Amino acid sequence: MSERLIYLPLGGAGEIGMNAYVYGYGAPGKERLILVDLGVTFGDMEGSPGIDLIMPDLTWLEANRDRLEGIFITHGHEDHLGAVAHLWSRLNVPIYARKFTGTLCRLKLEEAGIPADTVQIVGPRPEVTELGPFKVQYVPVSHSIPESAALVIDTPAGRVVHTGDFKLDGTPIVGDPFDPVMWHDIANEGPGVKVLTCDSTNVFSSHPGRSEAVLAAPILDWVVAQKNMVVATTFASNIARLKTLSEAAIAADRKVCLLGRAMRRMVSVGLETGILTDFPNTIGPDEAANMPRNKVMLLVTGSQGERRAASAQLSRGRYLGLSLKEGDSFLFSSKTIPGNERSVGRIMNALSEKGIELYDGDDGLFHVSGHANRPDIEAMHDLLKPEIVLPMHGEHRHLREHMNIARSKGIASMIATNGMMVDLTGKAPRVVDQVETGRLYLDGNVLIGAMDGVVRDRIRMALNGHALVSVIVDEDDNPIPDAWVELSGLPGRTRGGADLGEHIEGELAEFLETADRKTVRDDAKIEEAVRKITRQVSMEEIGKKPEVSVIISRLMAE
Amino acid sequence: MSERLIYLPLGGAGEIGMNAYVYGYGAPGKERLILVDLGVTFGDMEGSPGIDLIMPDLTWLEANRDRLEGIFITHGHEDHLGAVAHLWSRLNVPIYARKFTGTLCRLKLEEAGIPADTVQIVGPRPEVTELGPFKVQYVPVSHSIPESAALVIDTPAGRVVHTGDFKLDGTPIVGDPFDPVMWHDIANEGPGVKVLTCDSTNVFSSHPGRSEAVLAAPILDWVVAQKNMVVATTFASNIARLKTLSEAAIAADRKVCLLGRAMRRMVSVGLETGILTDFPNTIGPDEAANMPRNKVMLLVTGSQGERRAASAQLSRGRYLGLSLKEGDSFLFSSKTIPGNERSVGRIMNALSEKGIELYDGDDGLFHVSGHANRPDIEAMHDLLKPEIVLPMHGEHRHLREHMNIARSKGIASMIATNGMMVDLTGKAPRVVDQVETGRLYLDGNVLIGAMDGVVRDRIRMALNGHALVSVIVDEDDNPIPDAWVELSGLPGRTRGGADLGEHIEGELAEFLETADRKTVRDDAKIEEAVRKITRQVSMEEIGKKPEVSVIISRLMAE
Repeated sequence: MSERLIYLPLGGAGEIGMNAYVYGYGAPGKERLILVDLGVTFGDMEGSPGIDLIMPDLTWLEANRDRLEGIFITHGHEDHLGAVAHLWSRLNVPIYARKFTGTLCRLKLEEAGIPADTVQIVGPRPEVTELGPFKVQYVPVSHSIPESAALVIDTPAGRVVHTGDFKLDGTPIVGDPFDPVMWHDIANEGPGVKVLTCDSTNVFSSHPGRSEAVLAAPILDWVVAQKNMVVATTFASNIARLKTLSEAAIAADRKVCLLGRAMRRMVSVGLETGILTDFPNTIGPDEAANMPRNKVMLLVTGSQGERRAASAQLSRGRYLGLSLKEGDSFLFSSKTIPGNERSVGRIMNALSEKGIELYDGDDGLFHVSGHANRPDIEAMHDLLKPEIVLPMHGEHRHLREHMNIARSKGIASMIATNGMMVDLTGKAPRVVDQVETGRLYLDGNVLIGAMDGVVRDRIRMALNGHALVSVIVDEDDNPIPDAWVELSGLPGRTRGGADLGEHIEGELAEFLETADRKTVRDDAKIEEAVRKITRQVSMEEIGKKPEVSVIISRLMAE
Repeated sequence: MSERLIYLPLGGAGEIGMNAYVYGYGAPGKERLILVDLGVTFGDMEGSPGIDLIMPDLTWLEANRDRLEGIFITHGHEDHLGAVAHLWSRLNVPIYARKFTGTLCRLKLEEAGIPADTVQIVGPRPEVTELGPFKVQYVPVSHSIPESAALVIDTPAGRVVHTGDFKLDGTPIVGDPFDPVMWHDIANEGPGVKVLTCDSTNVFSSHPGRSEAVLAAPILDWVVAQKNMVVATTFASNIARLKTLSEAAIAADRKVCLLGRAMRRMVSVGLETGILTDFPNTIGPDEAANMPRNKVMLLVTGSQGERRAASAQLSRGRYLGLSLKEGDSFLFSSKTIPGNERSVGRIMNALSEKGIELYDGDDGLFHVSGHANRPDIEAMHDLLKPEIVLPMHGEHRHLREHMNIARSKGIASMIATNGMMVDLTGKAPRVVDQVETGRLYLDGNVLIGAMDGVVRDRIRMALNGHALVSVIVDEDDNPIPDAWVELSGLPGRTRGGADLGEHIEGELAEFLETADRKTVRDDAKIEEAVRKITRQVSMEEIGKKPEVSVIISRLMAE
């Protein structure tokens, strides 16, 4: 059988977050593999309470790791590199990244006790990294973090362009501007582009994307107009935005104070790697607290409403000696990611209660997106003229819309979601396998499977409450009729005012007193009966069936 | 002391939802009172897991119910009348509403066993309801439900206009168009308007609101262009939208099938009360299932992603014999309420996975809002020329923005949030008291206080997991060293692969074997020690401190 080029997303295709895309080339089942990105997504109370980080289940890749050549990281966002430190030991191959991204990655690996030299720093095109049948070039693109890159992946079956997260920005403030000539060359070298694997995040935004540079004037006007303390929040990694905000502060005769560990880290890595030059001097929180309020701008983390970030802390009260007051101004130089509306709203309202004037990016004056909008995505299609477009980095509906756009131009396209192995060798993509995929949850410091039932049980307890019953069976196999019931997350009183726990205990006593020996000798039977009675009594008394845990203790004759 | 006019929001001021506004007139502390609206808000997994309905805590009003004259309902949305059936028995006063709203209210009361004639149907202005010192008129306004009304409340201290939810719509499809002459009269009768209590929901929308009528053409064009089954969802109570959608279906030679109990109820109450005329004949799901797919439009509930509504059911599979297929079209003729993005996205993606083309209201073609935008709010200020503007129906940041607008026009204004009693007698509003307010949760069929700790415990179990420990102390006050541990919502295995429950049991046995008699005789001391050990072991083994419940059973000598 001849060799083939395959694509296998393990995360990020059918969701925004947790990116992990496999490419392979070789004889079927023996393809040599590379992995592009290894990111996380974040848990939420609704779907994964108690879980901070979610990452792709790499079972398939682990089983085939002798075929894996390396991991290429496109840029430094958590949804592209956040899982590396947690999962690298299961793969144990070299990691490739450009300097800024690689430095961020090394910091994470070092915290996890993995040697920094696991990450190899590579330069942008024309530098080529050759790994097995792959020749990989990093092509600078603009995004909301410096040094984002598309990958040009040359294989014997043709050229793949994997955009990573990108926008078309001729004036990105930090990093390389969009270079149409370079992209023209990429499109026209040799037989051209076979496959374009392309960011779909903003496919529903119908206006052309705007440059980072358009924000400078409105932000400066805004800072100049403020009378008291000025606070601005954005993603810590959006260094271009931090620069624009800081320069506006300096121009308005204010000092800049960075609050939040992530923000200080990003700026320092930016300076250290040379991607950031002439960033204004900053002052510490102590100094800021002693300056006149109209001489300071705080640049703070927490634009997405994160509970422990600086924005949230300031909205609740004093933080590192600083506090906000009536007449201060707070700018969200950001867009709220869908799903975070309530958390962000909570902070905005808490600030409003303190008398602080709020400003946000909604009318476009104070924020631009880091992703290509629909016209920009189309421009990329037109520029690269690929045979095949594979939409990625999107929920299913984003991928569908992106596929429809490609097909309307006569380009072959399909929706390949996590676990679908696609053969790209022919004129059109073709599904050749479906591998098992899933999600891993980092719970405390343990990685558990999303389907293990741990989180399901948490959700059930949260929705239904939890009744605990302790049953004791004595040495002679007689149950002690006084079962003990403890309720957690349940109303103690029924509608009529009775004690729910006592009521359940009463019904259980009746059962235990009359239970036959066969039942009493069988833990499963006792448990089933106790659970049924507890749920039934609760349903009658409070209209709700709780989760029930039963502990049966059998006393032993000494 | 002279008499005074007071305003006291008990819900809806500082949040969107759960509206309940008290007005009073009389000697301080002896004012006669009316309540405007008595609504609910909905629980969510993040803040109130397991809770379906949230309503205002009326403790203050219950304590003063001998002073309460009646309840006026402005319109039929749940956030304005949803709590009536649950809380009316605590107040026991007549309820006033217009016909459609009153009919909806009566249906709810009857289900709760409260006589229908508790609701008195009143006509629009010039009809006046006189209650104590209040003369109340219902003034038709447009909104996303028929028969919405503002209230003109005349008191000896002057005229209050309480807008309810409103927009300015000259062509609302169903119900009375905006009548500038009537509003002009209201503004200019007698000494004019003293207080305008005004909807703030859309204060951040800077463009003038659009009429319901603008949707007819684009919706018709859309329906005509679809080739297979067409499904549209919107709020069941948005009868004007249902009419527009149905008429487009008929014009495109399709039959209409209503799916979802709420939608059928709304249309039937609409027809019964005469507010809805010439609604197209509809067909049942059986008939729809047997029609050619291109001859049907399904009108379905669940535009906000509600799990049990028709949209969600169709996205998961077959519903009442109907199922969707590749090439069908699904329109969200709605806006996603902030906080519902994830639920709505889930349904959209499930539909996309079935190959269904999605359309939504985002570009304005298929949806208009039911609330006044900023220019419309300003128009209302200008039209009524009130002395005082009280922003309501908004989160704190909405109220702040609305207050700023009013003040910029030289109108006295303030942010009065739930529990603030405001004296409106003078030229400017003045806070005179802060009464206790809060939220009640309907949990199963029991009303519990939001601060009772029940929901707090659920959230903690969901975030941290739950460890249950059963300790038995024998007749001689000797603990049985084998403590039983049961884990719920916790990883069973530690990072190193050990059994977490057994590990905790081992540590507990060590403690119980060596505990002194003073500790053993004291339940609180055992509990404290067991909790501490369990949390400590868990933290060491899995990096997480669970909630711990301890049941101590003391065996009695027989």
